[in-house]
Amino acid sequence: MESYGKYNWKTKLHEIIYEADTPAGKLFDVVLLIVIVASIILVMLESIKSFDERFHSFLDISEWVITILFTIEYILRIITVKKPLKYITSFYGIIDLLSTIPKYLSLIFIGTHALVALRALRLLRIFRILKLVRFMGASNQLSSALKASRVKISVFLFAVIIAATIFGTIMYLVEGEENGFNNIPKSIYWCIVTLTTVGFGDIAPQTPLGQFIATLIMILGYGIIAVPTGIVSAEYTKASDTDSSKKLSDEEHKHVNTVIKNTQSCINCLATKHKDDAIFCRKCGSKLRI
Amino acid sequence: MESYGKYNWKTKLHEIIYEADTPAGKLFDVVLLIVIVASIILVMLESIKSFDERFHSFLDISEWVITILFTIEYILRIITVKKPLKYITSFYGIIDLLSTIPKYLSLIFIGTHALVALRALRLLRIFRILKLVRFMGASNQLSSALKASRVKISVFLFAVIIAATIFGTIMYLVEGEENGFNNIPKSIYWCIVTLTTVGFGDIAPQTPLGQFIATLIMILGYGIIAVPTGIVSAEYTKASDTDSSKKLSDEEHKHVNTVIKNTQSCINCLATKHKDDAIFCRKCGSKLRI
Amino acid sequence: MESYGKYNWKTKLHEIIYEADTPAGKLFDVVLLIVIVASIILVMLESIKSFDERFHSFLDISEWVITILFTIEYILRIITVKKPLKYITSFYGIIDLLSTIPKYLSLIFIGTHALVALRALRLLRIFRILKLVRFMGASNQLSSALKASRVKISVFLFAVIIAATIFGTIMYLVEGEENGFNNIPKSIYWCIVTLTTVGFGDIAPQTPLGQFIATLIMILGYGIIAVPTGIVSAEYTKASDTDSSKKLSDEEHKHVNTVIKNTQSCINCLATKHKDDAIFCRKCGSKLRI
Amino acid sequence: MESYGKYNWKTKLHEIIYEADTPAGKLFDVVLLIVIVASIILVMLESIKSFDERFHSFLDISEWVITILFTIEYILRIITVKKPLKYITSFYGIIDLLSTIPKYLSLIFIGTHALVALRALRLLRIFRILKLVRFMGASNQLSSALKASRVKISVFLFAVIIAATIFGTIMYLVEGEENGFNNIPKSIYWCIVTLTTVGFGDIAPQTPLGQFIATLIMILGYGIIAVPTGIVSAEYTKASDTDSSKKLSDEEHKHVNTVIKNTQSCINCLATKHKDDAIFCRKCGSKLRI
Repeated sequence: MESYGKYNWKTKLHEIIYEADTPAGKLFDVVLLIVIVASIILVMLESIKSFDERFHSFLDISEWVITILFTIEYILRIITVKKPLKYITSFYGIIDLLSTIPKYLSLIFIGTHALVALRALRLLRIFRILKLVRFMGASNQLSSALKASRVKISVFLFAVIIAATIFGTIMYLVEGEENGFNNIPKSIYWCIVTLTTVGFGDIAPQTPLGQFIATLIMILGYGIIAVPTGIVSAEYTKASDTDSSKKLSDEEHKHVNTVIKNTQSCINCLATKHKDDAIFCRKCGSKLRI
Repeated sequence: MESYGKYNWKTKLHEIIYEADTPAGKLFDVVLLIVIVASIILVMLESIKSFDERFHSFLDISEWVITILFTIEYILRIITVKKPLKYITSFYGIIDLLSTIPKYLSLIFIGTHALVALRALRLLRIFRILKLVRFMGASNQLSSALKASRVKISVFLFAVIIAATIFGTIMYLVEGEENGFNNIPKSIYWCIVTLTTVGFGDIAPQTPLGQFIATLIMILGYGIIAVPTGIVSAEYTKASDTDSSKKLSDEEHKHVNTVIKNTQSCINCLATKHKDDAIFCRKCGSKLRI
Repeated sequence: MESYGKYNWKTKLHEIIYEADTPAGKLFDVVLLIVIVASIILVMLESIKSFDERFHSFLDISEWVITILFTIEYILRIITVKKPLKYITSFYGIIDLLSTIPKYLSLIFIGTHALVALRALRLLRIFRILKLVRFMGASNQLSSALKASRVKISVFLFAVIIAATIFGTIMYLVEGEENGFNNIPKSIYWCIVTLTTVGFGDIAPQTPLGQFIATLIMILGYGIIAVPTGIVSAEYTKASDTDSSKKLSDEEHKHVNTVIKNTQSCINCLATKHKDDAIFCRKCGSKLRI
Repeated sequence: MESYGKYNWKTKLHEIIYEADTPAGKLFDVVLLIVIVASIILVMLESIKSFDERFHSFLDISEWVITILFTIEYILRIITVKKPLKYITSFYGIIDLLSTIPKYLSLIFIGTHALVALRALRLLRIFRILKLVRFMGASNQLSSALKASRVKISVFLFAVIIAATIFGTIMYLVEGEENGFNNIPKSIYWCIVTLTTVGFGDIAPQTPLGQFIATLIMILGYGIIAVPTGIVSAEYTKASDTDSSKKLSDEEHKHVNTVIKNTQSCINCLATKHKDDAIFCRKCGSKLRI
């Protein structure tokens, strides 16, 4: 196609749209974030009937403005990348497309409720902007603590689900349909509501025996709420001890080094997470920001 | 009886059914897990009236299929073990039998509600399969932390129950029957609902004095929710410190060594948890997997 | 009065009733515990109207039996102690008396509801028996962690109460009487129900603004539930580190040494918590268990 | 203006009103605290209709007494400070004024509901008295732990809000208006009620699919309640380790040193937090307590 060796407008636009280490790139991200948030607020406001009735035309026009902005952005994203198809079929490419089309679709399928779901997908676009958050570096420790306790929390949640199934069946047999425990799945739902100490109270045991078993479930839930907390707390203490004492083991050292604050995005293959001193893309070998 | 010195079909079947260190044994466990889960889902679906009415024959046939599968498994378990009576009277032997018979019983006692309870017992069979989980090794640290804090959590729960009894009696006297606090046990039930921060709201204090005492109970509950969490958290940190620093005390060393990943099951006495290099059963002395 | 230098029956009885280091003393405590628990269960059962109506005479007789047992115990406690007045006016002396008299009072004041409160006081007698628990030694670490965090938790709870007052007033102004927020104290009550994540739901915000503020309160509550947990957890880790590493500071050493497992009770002044090798009472100097 | 070089009455009054290191100053603070708390209790009592109707004149007179006391205090605060305008326009100056005027305003605007809000502002005055709390020194460790985890908790809360928005939209689509999920903001409100395990139950999912998604939300909430707790717990352990081991890094050393227990307040510019050995104001250079 064309030579990307010089700072032509496509390369510049690519840097603005896909990266966040130039003032223009940061501004673009912030503006995009605002538009996305605005579009989500619009979806919310439209769901409020009384508001929708009074300001219908305002909501309609705003939605068109956002749709057009997203359309322009989508087209720019396609033309500033070397392999458009790769972008279009990527996760964010699909999200971007789905975020753009609901209003167009509403012209064809009039009054479809499901388009709200499509518009809500725009929320996922925020995660793309979160590469900004990466600069904060605050969530690294947190996410590494969560990653370390992932397996243990899974084992724990599995135990919670088994307990909920057993107690749910018992409560179904004890309380029965006349007290709101219509069937076993609903009983299990109630059990999880109770074990997690949420306690809606839409269903509540009425028989003395049911209330006694509920007491056991609650005390059990109270006792085991400690477990995930203890796990994350311990892992986090470990992670933060490691950080502060600077006594890093080899593997941990590697991990700390791979915290990526670079927002470079390859114009050819869209690969990100390049090292700060990288000149060539680590995935496809094409030159970065020449 | 017969010679178990060679790989005859019984020994092979024993290995498949009772152990999980051969591909066939693992497959058997996975299939069994699926059948058990399916049978539990059937129980759940049958408890949903509208579903039961529409798909009654499907549920009936499925239950028969599962019952027959369980029957075959139960018979195989009996004939592949040297001392069938020992298996039949063991905990899992009784569970296996009770899991198998509900459908047969339903032919005799028509429409008995209590059979649901019997069928729900199948859930307990999952724990047998959980020997698979042992391979994950993830829950060891967790369970050792829980074991270490067991006594302390008991003391704590005892204190919670005393507090609930005292406050329950007070609330019964303050609020009385007209506000839903019909009797002291129900008041205690409400107290535990509140202390554990579940808060159904099916019963709630109505008098200003009752609401004031409820406030005290809630703040107390808020303050003491920290205690079990703190205990488990501290124990877990200790357990995980020990692991990572490799400075194991003698006793802890012994504990770590006894984490059993071996699934060998003695064909004679059904004893499990053998050492990896064990050739003879640690309980009855008969040869393992010859 | 009399010579206490020999093992006369009074000294023996004193040892049985007030102490727990002889088999007879332990038996006495266990029996007393059972009687107290039985008496509390009686109070509970009597509060259940349907039960009271059917088994009124049984409950009446049982209450008389317990009252007589308590009366005998109370008289024995008085005569086996050197200074009866000191016992009678002590905390447990008053509790013992109040536990004994409700049934006698019911002869004079017929049908008084308030006597239930008096009978519920019996629960406090359990704490006397808890000297048995001291042998378990399990709660020492726990209570020292709680003691260490007492001041901090108070400061924290004070902050919670101020937050509840501010948000309660705001919610009263926003929601108003028509949505259940009748007055500021009730609003504050709702606020604490929400901050502690109990959430009864008997009062719930109805206006969008009220629900928005409620969201803030909940997230605040969610964020600060971490604080007392973190405090206790950290203190407990410290306490348990100290224990396990055996590196005790002077002051902590002293504390550990003062964990009293001795149940000797001076026959003269009722002082307890003597050292195991004490021969004379540490308070009044009279001889112990001669 | 006048010479402040000697202990004239203005300097003395300044010391009493603005500082808390003389007996008179402490007494003034305690009395002021009592009056503020009394004024807040008055606001609460007035909001209880039945109480207001019976004791209207008592409440009215009490409010006048407090208003006059506050007026006197306000005037004294103005005349004992060198630059009155600076005090009047300061945060606490405005709070003091707003705390004083509601009763005067009620003469002009009869029966204004909003004046309650103005009177509730008096609560903020308590924070001024909390300089007394500073002497306790208990909250320092706590607030430093909170400060250290501020950024991380923000990141975490941001994640919670995004999760609530996504799940809220899903629940709105699944449950719809007929089950109380009238619009997306209300759905998000419900989602946060559930994620924080508050669970009012004023809105609760009715469809099986909705209840299933609610289960996921609750387990998610149960799993992530661990995160802020773990963060604060770890930070607090670190802070408290630092304290107890006396191995302070340079920066931490500085922090510990800046814990201010001095209540001196400059008569010229009202600056506080002076070092104990300070003779001149650290902000404007004028002499302190000459």
